[in-house]
Amino acid sequence: MKVILNGCNGSMGQVVVQVIKRQEDIEVVAGIDRYPEAKSNDFPVYKSFSGLSFRGDLIMDFSRPEALGDILKYALETRTPVLIATTGHDERAKKSIEEAAEMIPIFMSSNLSLGINLLIKLVKQAAAFLGDAFDIEIIEKHHNKKVDAPSGTAITIARNINEVFDGAKEFIYGRQSKAQKRDSKEIGIHAIRGGTIVGEHTVIFAGQDEILEISHYAHSREIFAIGAIKAARFLINQNPGLYGMDDLVNNI
Amino acid sequence: MKVILNGCNGSMGQVVVQVIKRQEDIEVVAGIDRYPEAKSNDFPVYKSFSGLSFRGDLIMDFSRPEALGDILKYALETRTPVLIATTGHDERAKKSIEEAAEMIPIFMSSNLSLGINLLIKLVKQAAAFLGDAFDIEIIEKHHNKKVDAPSGTAITIARNINEVFDGAKEFIYGRQSKAQKRDSKEIGIHAIRGGTIVGEHTVIFAGQDEILEISHYAHSREIFAIGAIKAARFLINQNPGLYGMDDLVNNI
Amino acid sequence: MKVILNGCNGSMGQVVVQVIKRQEDIEVVAGIDRYPEAKSNDFPVYKSFSGLSFRGDLIMDFSRPEALGDILKYALETRTPVLIATTGHDERAKKSIEEAAEMIPIFMSSNLSLGINLLIKLVKQAAAFLGDAFDIEIIEKHHNKKVDAPSGTAITIARNINEVFDGAKEFIYGRQSKAQKRDSKEIGIHAIRGGTIVGEHTVIFAGQDEILEISHYAHSREIFAIGAIKAARFLINQNPGLYGMDDLVNNI
Amino acid sequence: MKVILNGCNGSMGQVVVQVIKRQEDIEVVAGIDRYPEAKSNDFPVYKSFSGLSFRGDLIMDFSRPEALGDILKYALETRTPVLIATTGHDERAKKSIEEAAEMIPIFMSSNLSLGINLLIKLVKQAAAFLGDAFDIEIIEKHHNKKVDAPSGTAITIARNINEVFDGAKEFIYGRQSKAQKRDSKEIGIHAIRGGTIVGEHTVIFAGQDEILEISHYAHSREIFAIGAIKAARFLINQNPGLYGMDDLVNNI
Repeated sequence: MKVILNGCNGSMGQVVVQVIKRQEDIEVVAGIDRYPEAKSNDFPVYKSFSGLSFRGDLIMDFSRPEALGDILKYALETRTPVLIATTGHDERAKKSIEEAAEMIPIFMSSNLSLGINLLIKLVKQAAAFLGDAFDIEIIEKHHNKKVDAPSGTAITIARNINEVFDGAKEFIYGRQSKAQKRDSKEIGIHAIRGGTIVGEHTVIFAGQDEILEISHYAHSREIFAIGAIKAARFLINQNPGLYGMDDLVNNI
Repeated sequence: MKVILNGCNGSMGQVVVQVIKRQEDIEVVAGIDRYPEAKSNDFPVYKSFSGLSFRGDLIMDFSRPEALGDILKYALETRTPVLIATTGHDERAKKSIEEAAEMIPIFMSSNLSLGINLLIKLVKQAAAFLGDAFDIEIIEKHHNKKVDAPSGTAITIARNINEVFDGAKEFIYGRQSKAQKRDSKEIGIHAIRGGTIVGEHTVIFAGQDEILEISHYAHSREIFAIGAIKAARFLINQNPGLYGMDDLVNNI
Repeated sequence: MKVILNGCNGSMGQVVVQVIKRQEDIEVVAGIDRYPEAKSNDFPVYKSFSGLSFRGDLIMDFSRPEALGDILKYALETRTPVLIATTGHDERAKKSIEEAAEMIPIFMSSNLSLGINLLIKLVKQAAAFLGDAFDIEIIEKHHNKKVDAPSGTAITIARNINEVFDGAKEFIYGRQSKAQKRDSKEIGIHAIRGGTIVGEHTVIFAGQDEILEISHYAHSREIFAIGAIKAARFLINQNPGLYGMDDLVNNI
Repeated sequence: MKVILNGCNGSMGQVVVQVIKRQEDIEVVAGIDRYPEAKSNDFPVYKSFSGLSFRGDLIMDFSRPEALGDILKYALETRTPVLIATTGHDERAKKSIEEAAEMIPIFMSSNLSLGINLLIKLVKQAAAFLGDAFDIEIIEKHHNKKVDAPSGTAITIARNINEVFDGAKEFIYGRQSKAQKRDSKEIGIHAIRGGTIVGEHTVIFAGQDEILEISHYAHSREIFAIGAIKAARFLINQNPGLYGMDDLVNNI
């Protein structure tokens, strides 16, 4: 598979370059970057899509939401599938993605870690099966430089669980009290911060004399690149449409 | 639901009695036991099914394989569903269960813990999704009096995972070497023994910079009684047939 | 060792009775309880110390602070060491304990779990060694009926760690923010509540690419009885004085 | 502190260079390496100590045992303390180290991780305190490329624990049996292998209804460099003598 990598010289872009190098059936044939000279790559890098004189099988976007217009223009002209790993698109941008997805396959995700998305799928099943008889608590751990708490991923996990309960659960972000029992509709979300922890998420289902725990540990950003590659392999075989990690995780 | 409890005075039978007492919609209406006087119960206990002058909605069997003939005879005569939580039936006994299941609903399981059976379902999905890119290891922990290692449940988990790989995996029960890398077809199964641990099982999927872990912790035998009750509620709504924890766990 | 057990018919007293039965070198020779007939014991039970016509090697008190006067009176008259496992003594009571400890050995503790007290000793050393380079977080887990959060034991652990830092640390009971990094003087204390968890405490030291964790898991109240027995064996060899778990844990 | 780094262009040497750059009170003033041009460093690199025209406060050695003679010769001439992080010295080399240590402070360790050495100190205390009443098991986890199992560090931990029991314990490297209870003199050592796990060691003390666990997680080789820096700060204030991680860990 021949990949055109948008944002190839950014820090995540460079991680993707390194991980793709280790694969046999996939290569970066061209990069697009605002600063084409910023890194030394072993593929040509252009300042914009207009410089491209050949085609690829897929565009990967690890840049900024502002680049969306150029990406979609090129992708629609050349009928090239697009994997968008950028976040922060406004409503108008989202609409243009949906429109483009009527003509070409587009994959969009804010968290390309396969493990986390698999975890979400599994905890939803566990929640549906165990129901109200088990108390649900989420513990996430990240490094001491992280400014938001709890993590966006922990919130995403909790929201997915809450869907199973038709929104009946309430999120609690810590406990300090002298005389208050846990309410069964609580989902406790606990943000541990320390050292250089890359990212850990644990979902606890605690019942009568029995506990089920599902945990995910991320040890580097490479896992997002690996997720991108798996998503790419999935995407190039699809019909036009808008796809996400759900489709990938459920497609087993 | 009115339950006839076979083996009500055994140690597991008594656990079932206590747990059912805490439920509102289910009660033991009669017990059958070789030693009817061994325990004081607040329901009548008979030495055999022939003493029973009324009917129940379901028979639960926590006795011995030898009791099977009497159970099935009564169940077929009265068209009563049966939950068999006894293990060690020979081929002939299994055949008579299958034949009876053409007439009445029968549920059979050697491990009624909902959590463990849910864990098995989840790890099979994880194995199918993560595939060969993740190494799989199982750690189980039990008390220092347990004589078999690894636990039957750990073996069951490993076999279920191996089904996903069409039997391509090999089980390894410990490692001691100076110059041998892990083979990707290994499933390591590690039996920790210590103190009074009731039972813990963890399945580790270790990939590139990423780990997914699914754990189950049992803290008392009551969880098997709770599983029996959930199975009973499932069973009384079924058509004749032979059911197991798979059906229960998949039925969500 | 011959033990006089004050409060022998209370729920914790009965646990102590059972655990002592399993020991070879220690026995309960007499019980004292407000309700001497409440339980059937295989030792004589008296309504008060005045009924006692023989002596023991040690008094264990698992009753109520109100009983203190009678206990100390008898103990001082007979020069019998006392282990006080009762909490809630007022200042005046504490003073009378200190005065009595000038004449007889007295052991006093609100948490007789050896494991937790060992954990406290170990985490203090870890904190002293690792210093400010490691972030410290405490996670405790208890059942969903517990009304106070965080647990008294978690607070005790945090206070002991804070002593190492001369009180420079601040306790945080949960995190929810959009734009705030962890302050290095924080000790995060997280109260997980769910199911029937008896009690778990984990102290995390998270540094640069390195984590040290010390955890204690309690699975029944018997551990407090076992701690009492170990404390008793320690106490009967001591000179008059006031002793606590510190002395026991440090005495290795 | 001015450091002369022997073996500066090796893979571990380069990790040390990077970590020292982030410190304020310590710098590499010169490197020695067989291949002085192999890496670009911002300090002068010489092929041997004879090229050095100035002095440092300390020599760090991350090279090969063969370099020992040159290092000690220079160190004795200039009265410079030496930190030896190299392994594999033969008896004669060890003797020359001991002799040199009569004149200058020398620090020697095969595992400079502070966390692991702290863990060893803590588990020895726990073992001494908990004694035979607790079963001890060790779980270590490493990547799937590691060729030795169990890890050298796990063996070191087990040996240190065994010292507490005067050598009465036996090491077991896995369990598979049908009818054999755990012997109380066993220390189970379990080697989990999978993915890219850098290194984890957990010591479990399992008693009656109570478990104490001490774990160490290493997430990069930088922790060995950090340990070297802490050892260096300790060493330059010492009198002549031979020091090790024990002295560092106990010196709190």
